[in-house]
Amino acid sequence: MIISGESLIGRASRRGGGGTFEAIEAATGRAFGPPFSCAGRAELDEACKLAAESFDAYRNTALDIRADFLEAIAQEILESGDDLIVRCMRETGLPRGRLEGERGRTVAQLRMFASVTRDGGFLRARIDPAESERMPARRPDLRLQMIGIGPVAVFGASNFPFAFSVAGGDTASALAAGCPVVVKAHPAHPGTSELVGRAVQAAATACGMPEGVFSLLFDSGIETGAALVADPRIAAVGFTGSRGGGTALMRIAAGREVPIPVYAEMSSINPVVLFRQALLARGAEIGRAFVSSLILGSGQFCTSPGLLLAEDGAGLDAFVAAAAAELADAAAATMLTPGIHHAYCSGVDALASNAAVKTVARGRSGDVHQGQAGLFETTAEAFLSDRHLGEEVFGAASLLVRCRDAADIRAVIGHLEGQLTASLHMDPADYEEARSLLPVLERKVGRILVNGFGTGVEVGHAMVHGGPYPATSDSRTTSVGSLAIDRFLRPVSYQDMPGALLPDALRDENPLGLWRRLDGKLCAP
Amino acid sequence: MIISGESLIGRASRRGGGGTFEAIEAATGRAFGPPFSCAGRAELDEACKLAAESFDAYRNTALDIRADFLEAIAQEILESGDDLIVRCMRETGLPRGRLEGERGRTVAQLRMFASVTRDGGFLRARIDPAESERMPARRPDLRLQMIGIGPVAVFGASNFPFAFSVAGGDTASALAAGCPVVVKAHPAHPGTSELVGRAVQAAATACGMPEGVFSLLFDSGIETGAALVADPRIAAVGFTGSRGGGTALMRIAAGREVPIPVYAEMSSINPVVLFRQALLARGAEIGRAFVSSLILGSGQFCTSPGLLLAEDGAGLDAFVAAAAAELADAAAATMLTPGIHHAYCSGVDALASNAAVKTVARGRSGDVHQGQAGLFETTAEAFLSDRHLGEEVFGAASLLVRCRDAADIRAVIGHLEGQLTASLHMDPADYEEARSLLPVLERKVGRILVNGFGTGVEVGHAMVHGGPYPATSDSRTTSVGSLAIDRFLRPVSYQDMPGALLPDALRDENPLGLWRRLDGKLCAP
Repeated sequence: MIISGESLIGRASRRGGGGTFEAIEAATGRAFGPPFSCAGRAELDEACKLAAESFDAYRNTALDIRADFLEAIAQEILESGDDLIVRCMRETGLPRGRLEGERGRTVAQLRMFASVTRDGGFLRARIDPAESERMPARRPDLRLQMIGIGPVAVFGASNFPFAFSVAGGDTASALAAGCPVVVKAHPAHPGTSELVGRAVQAAATACGMPEGVFSLLFDSGIETGAALVADPRIAAVGFTGSRGGGTALMRIAAGREVPIPVYAEMSSINPVVLFRQALLARGAEIGRAFVSSLILGSGQFCTSPGLLLAEDGAGLDAFVAAAAAELADAAAATMLTPGIHHAYCSGVDALASNAAVKTVARGRSGDVHQGQAGLFETTAEAFLSDRHLGEEVFGAASLLVRCRDAADIRAVIGHLEGQLTASLHMDPADYEEARSLLPVLERKVGRILVNGFGTGVEVGHAMVHGGPYPATSDSRTTSVGSLAIDRFLRPVSYQDMPGALLPDALRDENPLGLWRRLDGKLCAP
Repeated sequence: MIISGESLIGRASRRGGGGTFEAIEAATGRAFGPPFSCAGRAELDEACKLAAESFDAYRNTALDIRADFLEAIAQEILESGDDLIVRCMRETGLPRGRLEGERGRTVAQLRMFASVTRDGGFLRARIDPAESERMPARRPDLRLQMIGIGPVAVFGASNFPFAFSVAGGDTASALAAGCPVVVKAHPAHPGTSELVGRAVQAAATACGMPEGVFSLLFDSGIETGAALVADPRIAAVGFTGSRGGGTALMRIAAGREVPIPVYAEMSSINPVVLFRQALLARGAEIGRAFVSSLILGSGQFCTSPGLLLAEDGAGLDAFVAAAAAELADAAAATMLTPGIHHAYCSGVDALASNAAVKTVARGRSGDVHQGQAGLFETTAEAFLSDRHLGEEVFGAASLLVRCRDAADIRAVIGHLEGQLTASLHMDPADYEEARSLLPVLERKVGRILVNGFGTGVEVGHAMVHGGPYPATSDSRTTSVGSLAIDRFLRPVSYQDMPGALLPDALRDENPLGLWRRLDGKLCAP
């Protein structure tokens, strides 16, 4: 596999006009080749132009053809073989098993969106037939379907080099929706990005897709990304990353002559509530499971358990003792980039030096690029009075808030910003207390899970990976799971349109075999 | 029926701390009593507090109970009887027939949302069952439903005192979604607003709804509305009005600590394309139908046909001659407010005095508060080079762009901003040409209609009353029709939640009898 260091513009690859950068080996912090050429204005312009020109042709491809394209991308990624895994390990510091698993998940995600495309339910086809005799005025024939919103800008994430990057969930759902995609590669894994980008490009060519359906731009800084979001041909944005980055894109998008939606998944500390009976029955066991989740991938997950809430007592003591023992034994692990490692160390130092915070345990220390896990403790009172304690420390750090009673727990939850997940550890004797917390939790988070942890986000139809601001910029959506396709669709209605001109989804004879709403009632094909 | 001039806060009514104003009789421009008391900070705060407090209780009401509430509102509005119509005629200058029709439509809309609520399809219930044997990791049980987004601020529109005001589409869809509503009444019809607000209040009391489910605030200026959108307890905004007003609310919402969605329906000139064969076959007939649509309600509709596109030729000449004759005979009609009348006159004067624009015909002149309809004409070249010619003139004015050929028509459409509707007048011999325009039109508008005009927006399941910016602030949605409920919902996922704690929509036994997606496949109840 050759890595050229060039941006991919439609079917071509191009050196850009904006300088070069190299990948950084996560384990050593050393740059390694080849040099990647930053996209300049010309490459950006060409990618957007091709995307805009391809939009009508692409969104009108038959659903089967579009699904074949998604499946072909999955196959091409698999065929990139071990070269892809090896390059990615070096760029990200993530271990082979994790990356093979993530590649499998990414491939499964593309195939799921292929099946969503074939199913056609996302078109939400609706027909209200005419009533020519209605008084005082004839009722017209009205038919509705969803269409793609337009070319989508996707920002690769540092922490999921496959699943949330070049051919990750944002790209897969946008392509499924009929939208061309222009990806801004994350500079932390440029070689991985190019290899995956070439897989998409090869699939697009093999499937005869219009040329502009996919482009991939490199940039070591933020200029290309900012210009991409500002480009009038871009109609929506998918982003996974920091709160600072996400809110910057939101501002650019809102300030455009034509504002566009930004789907930014930004920050979450994922509260874990440990109920009394569960702690008494199995506090130590939960403590060990917690540490497994915390240190997974060096805690570099949006759903890492960053906050623990529990009432003081013997059960909690058992939890803390087991978690501390487990943590003390946890190896340090290489973090994704020196910058992320530095931010993690700063965040942990701030926690450790906060007068209201006690260090419960630290993991084993490692080398200069490795993150040392940490568990800290504070009181509800301190947490409620210091908003810094509620800020995300990206990495394997977690803060236990030792509460006096259930009212404390409720107050802390009510005080939280929006979150991706909340985890509840409970036994049947805790159900009544949990029930009273559910309405509060539903307003704060996108996913509520029981006796587990938020890490390990299932790709399915009932997943919500989203949540109120600032977990995401738009609580009405999810970035994982089949519902993610809705982000890139808008409805169009056709009134009294002759059958010959109707889109296939809305023709009387239902050639696509869709479930449709007739006069509001779901009807089988 | 007594009109007190007080804001309605939950079950109470209150004089506010912010001065008073009176309604203006549209036909005379004279103020008439009673005085309306502007809401101050205290009233706003109380309304938002009650709304926030009622949210959990209200969103968890049984679907049937919520539907009963919507139907009770419809019934209470009907029982307001002729007092409501008489007051509204005086405030808006709209004739009895129109207002009785609009009230009927508003009542039907509330009942439609009652049926949408009972149906429960909007919950989008999805279940992905656990697979305990899956390797390498067990698949969890995941279940998803939509929940209300939170308290919604609704702004009454001047041009639809019933259908887009206090108990109009925004309020009906937000209440159906499980969201409390705080309405800012439009000062152009305060008495109408209070009467309808009292109907909602009476229905809420009769149905035992939590107190904060509905409040209604008066203000003659913009302060209360701005403060409402900025209030942290408000989670979304529905607005129908001017582009200036809508974009101001968008800026406030985007600048909040927690940004919220704004659904603003703002401006549209609704292009009408007249194809060659249709014009040759029935140009005069279409010309007369066009004038009927143009002068309906003094053109004070978001879907009024403000732009005509056609190729030069005998067919177009026949259209113009018939339209001019019809228009010359059209009576002037009272406009909604002196301000709207003034803006209309300014817009028409600007058109008439534009060197590239010819006045084709004017309607009959009227008194000082009446709008005189107008048809104007320009060339594609002039239209493409002067963006002012593409701006909405709210009222019964329309601009014909006389095109040299189909390429001109395509260029003008490509140049347009986003629109609510496009109308195509065509005969079968025009279909091929129309077909080639459809992709361009789909990207520009929310509804494409054939051999009709956009006025008369059907309330159904397949209606889209929305469109790309600046027609609306959010092209992903509609403000009319059952899909409007989606604006006020967000998804929540439950993972491995014990059956006893699951919401009814997601319990195994399906007590609500919903259609649900099981593993992605639609299943009957």
